[in-house]
Amino acid sequence: MEKTFNLYNKAKKLNNNQLRELIRCGDYKGQTAGLSQNMLQTNLIILEKKYALHFMVFCQRNPKACPLVGVTDLGNPFFKTLGKNIDVRTDLPSYNIYKNGMLFDTVQEITQYWNKNLIAFAIGCSFTFEHLLIKHGFSIDHINNNKVVPMYKTNIKNISSGPFGNSMVVSMRIIKKNKIDDVINICKSFHWAHGSPIHYGDPKEIGIVNTNKPDWGDAPRDILNDEAHVFWACGVTPQNAILKSDVPLCISHTPGHMLITDISQDAEIPILH
Amino acid sequence: MEKTFNLYNKAKKLNNNQLRELIRCGDYKGQTAGLSQNMLQTNLIILEKKYALHFMVFCQRNPKACPLVGVTDLGNPFFKTLGKNIDVRTDLPSYNIYKNGMLFDTVQEITQYWNKNLIAFAIGCSFTFEHLLIKHGFSIDHINNNKVVPMYKTNIKNISSGPFGNSMVVSMRIIKKNKIDDVINICKSFHWAHGSPIHYGDPKEIGIVNTNKPDWGDAPRDILNDEAHVFWACGVTPQNAILKSDVPLCISHTPGHMLITDISQDAEIPILH
Repeated sequence: MEKTFNLYNKAKKLNNNQLRELIRCGDYKGQTAGLSQNMLQTNLIILEKKYALHFMVFCQRNPKACPLVGVTDLGNPFFKTLGKNIDVRTDLPSYNIYKNGMLFDTVQEITQYWNKNLIAFAIGCSFTFEHLLIKHGFSIDHINNNKVVPMYKTNIKNISSGPFGNSMVVSMRIIKKNKIDDVINICKSFHWAHGSPIHYGDPKEIGIVNTNKPDWGDAPRDILNDEAHVFWACGVTPQNAILKSDVPLCISHTPGHMLITDISQDAEIPILH
Repeated sequence: MEKTFNLYNKAKKLNNNQLRELIRCGDYKGQTAGLSQNMLQTNLIILEKKYALHFMVFCQRNPKACPLVGVTDLGNPFFKTLGKNIDVRTDLPSYNIYKNGMLFDTVQEITQYWNKNLIAFAIGCSFTFEHLLIKHGFSIDHINNNKVVPMYKTNIKNISSGPFGNSMVVSMRIIKKNKIDDVINICKSFHWAHGSPIHYGDPKEIGIVNTNKPDWGDAPRDILNDEAHVFWACGVTPQNAILKSDVPLCISHTPGHMLITDISQDAEIPILH
């Protein structure tokens, strides 16, 4: 545990290229919140070409959860518009393999799965704006403790497209009640990374029965009297959609273990120039 | 000419639903700048399913010119997420028909062209923020004179996807030099409608030789000493891409003649709730 924490603290000092190199070599397999300051982090979904159009339409119709920031060419494992040398087969710390709508395996690289019929999609991640929240004096529990941010299934229905539907997944951060307006103002311009929160206050209003039992990530602490649960649309939403589909193969990031890009967090568009 | 201007002034008083109804009946065939205050206006591209994935990726890679705000289901002519009753076959004032990369016809409705193998794409339009510019005291020439905004081909290369490439098209508005910063600030949050300008000052820097000869729309007046040409990425960019492709059939709006949606100009996402 201490070794993991030391590695996390070491990774915190690396820039985007150094960190991606470490991940590519298999030397960093942890969660990525708090890492690679000021750069866009992304969720990952890889699908067979047959499902690509339906999936892109799903993202277009659910832009709070699925802001699409990169798409590879068919069979080409490089995200050319997100960085100079981003190989989707090796450059994330951990991957989930879904087969026929069920989680089949969690692996550190996917070279053996990649083939010429696959397309990879990158979806912006709320880790992108956490650096700015910290700069504004906010304390982010899961970064302080090297935990995976808690994520929950909600009762907020997605707009469906082909086999993709189900409901929105959210990430949660504990924020002081009198600071929620500040958080909204800081986050709202990050439209490539889920933007402003979709809900704060009573978790039951969006179908979350028990915040101590997240569907992905680590359980949070209890809130104090002057604090509230604040929820953001989350790029794990497509994985929740996959669980209600019969898609034969889907490869994703493992929740919390994101792709680090070469795109600045405040770029007007997520395209490398 | 006077009759056209009177009809335009009448149309200015209508809301989005009333205006779309007038257009659907064939009673308004003009340009739409200055109409339907505070609502998102969009460009239109209709393609056969075969080209849809490549086109969506083209939009993702060129988000300044092609902010994708709506996609129909295959063969379904209604933009469900953009309005309660938007029929893409009849609800634009004018359509361009492209065959094999050439402009084939300009028509007032496309019922005879629509078939079950087509998908329609809506792309945000800069007409959306013009209302706010006017509210801030700016004078917009083409709205004052019921002209079509001038649009130009540039030397700014698009990032290609499949058969779609070529270069960016821009729209142009004449702005006082000491007000350009204000314009940038007003427009930058309209990321669904091209956002901040991509260039101002010397048109030759982006490959425009003669501003008096736009590639689409009406010629502007000459600028005064204290004025500058200000250029925005334009949703006619896909039509320019089509001209360099061999796509058998593409139906678009006629430049300047946009789809009026039910989405508020300041909605965080372009999705009807």
